Amino acid sequence: MPARRTIGVDLGGTKLLAGAVDQRLGVHHRAQRTVSGLQQSVLLDVVVDAVTEARESAGAEVAAVGFGIPCLIDRRIGRVEVGVNTPLADLAFGDVMAERLGLPVFVDNDGNTAAMAEHRAGAARGASDAIVLTLGTGIACGLILDGRLYRGARGGAGELGHMVIDLHGPACQGNCPNRGCAEIYASGTALAREARQLAEVHPSSGLAAALNERRELAGPLVTELAHDGDTAAIEAVSLIGARLGIVITNLANIFNPEVVVVGGGVIAAGELMLAPARSVVAERTLPFLHDGLRIVPARFGVEAGMIGAAALAFDGLEGRPPAETRA
Amino acid sequence: MPARRTIGVDLGGTKLLAGAVDQRLGVHHRAQRTVSGLQQSVLLDVVVDAVTEARESAGAEVAAVGFGIPCLIDRRIGRVEVGVNTPLADLAFGDVMAERLGLPVFVDNDGNTAAMAEHRAGAARGASDAIVLTLGTGIACGLILDGRLYRGARGGAGELGHMVIDLHGPACQGNCPNRGCAEIYASGTALAREARQLAEVHPSSGLAAALNERRELAGPLVTELAHDGDTAAIEAVSLIGARLGIVITNLANIFNPEVVVVGGGVIAAGELMLAPARSVVAERTLPFLHDGLRIVPARFGVEAGMIGAAALAFDGLEGRPPAETRA
Repeated sequence: MPARRTIGVDLGGTKLLAGAVDQRLGVHHRAQRTVSGLQQSVLLDVVVDAVTEARESAGAEVAAVGFGIPCLIDRRIGRVEVGVNTPLADLAFGDVMAERLGLPVFVDNDGNTAAMAEHRAGAARGASDAIVLTLGTGIACGLILDGRLYRGARGGAGELGHMVIDLHGPACQGNCPNRGCAEIYASGTALAREARQLAEVHPSSGLAAALNERRELAGPLVTELAHDGDTAAIEAVSLIGARLGIVITNLANIFNPEVVVVGGGVIAAGELMLAPARSVVAERTLPFLHDGLRIVPARFGVEAGMIGAAALAFDGLEGRPPAETRA
Repeated sequence: MPARRTIGVDLGGTKLLAGAVDQRLGVHHRAQRTVSGLQQSVLLDVVVDAVTEARESAGAEVAAVGFGIPCLIDRRIGRVEVGVNTPLADLAFGDVMAERLGLPVFVDNDGNTAAMAEHRAGAARGASDAIVLTLGTGIACGLILDGRLYRGARGGAGELGHMVIDLHGPACQGNCPNRGCAEIYASGTALAREARQLAEVHPSSGLAAALNERRELAGPLVTELAHDGDTAAIEAVSLIGARLGIVITNLANIFNPEVVVVGGGVIAAGELMLAPARSVVAERTLPFLHDGLRIVPARFGVEAGMIGAAALAFDGLEGRPPAETRA
């Protein structure tokens, strides 16, 4: 009889990834769903369906479900407060899911679950101070400070995507009333936007050809073209990398971390993005704080949030601290 | 026989403030010295002289000396690494002082000592998550996270003054290789610069009159003129306040603190600076993270660093954690 497993669910703005995970964070079954544009009730049905699939194929007893969701969760009252790209605002999401699934449910911000996975068994393993960035539609983040996940007074810490890096920059999106926010410059969305502009500037580029073929110039295609050597695509990736370098410079000066881990779909670009980022960080960070700083890709790549959500569920079953954010 | 006291020393780039402090953080004697432009050996003599004065007038046995210095201190090797506005680089400052003073000596960054004072007995008392800013020549900062002072991997955390808020801004000063740093926009130095420019724009203003009288248009005079109702001085203070609001917006989105405490000489401007700051924070911060956030002046004003240094010495005598940064 194999040891029990948990289901980890990374519920993003466009995709859901569920996996049956063992206590050593090995993944035994994956279920994917597209969730963009769904209304709340349909979304909840899709979530239940994906978890049920993962549970049936888990190959062992499933003891709990953990969720990483792109939401601010009020740790004082355990309720989803702001659904950033997901229609879950003001929902007692954990309670609803626990009832529908008949299993204990634990919920945290997706930036936090990604950080938990990378800190426990990935690229930030053993670090006392680490920052895990996930570049997607926006920028998610988890802060490991003095060896522990830092959540802030209400559980909303780590909204680094809404750090102003350009005083006079353009207005941000959604529920953010700010201007010149980091995620306007260094997210997956920013990469797609820059790629579309560069396609126009370089009409004989691979980017332009893809645009003419009416293919979607989103992160995956741009990074693929960059790896294939298309100079316009490389320029787009490199531009985002350099701006990511400014974001990381701020984080180094503010937090003095040992390691900054970069994940999310965009990190498929690998060194094409990280090398320009490192170069800007070396140029701009206070030397004392740059010395020894590592900037590395996420070990679990796009699965970090899902694997961390499963870890959250194991922690929750054992009554360990992250359970305090149970929604 | 009164209970024993410690000497707290705030060693700034231009001024030194030493005080004999009791365990309840009451100040019994103050000694001030001007230290700008001194060479290391002369500076050390002045420090010894000021501590000796405070010790002789302490009114009780002095058990230890605590220093807050504007330096990055490598917590792993206990050595001053970078003297930001002070010629102490690569000096085992704590050891040298302990030998010359014949007392136990404890050293920390001045932003950290100010935060300790405000957290223990001042404007951040009781807060689990608080950020204490000291606006002077630059911006010093202490981070209280989950109830404890956060220092980062090498002890260099909290260099918020070198957070980029303007991608394309001007070059920073001293040993900072960055551009568009917060302290270019929202420090005491920035206030003096803006005041000089506004004096030229408004030749009939109090600012212009002061400049014509060859008075030094630094923070104290500008805030005095602002309190007297000079509209140009109020404009200067208000401009710095609005930019401080952008800095605090970033901190609110990153840390989700309960309270941001603003100290340093510039806070003499009081609400003339804090009101515009609060207004920008309300406008730009993610609403969930703005809700409940307090932005308040330092209780100990310009004495926070000195009083916190004395508290550091009491902690050190008791073997409590801050002693780990003993230099």
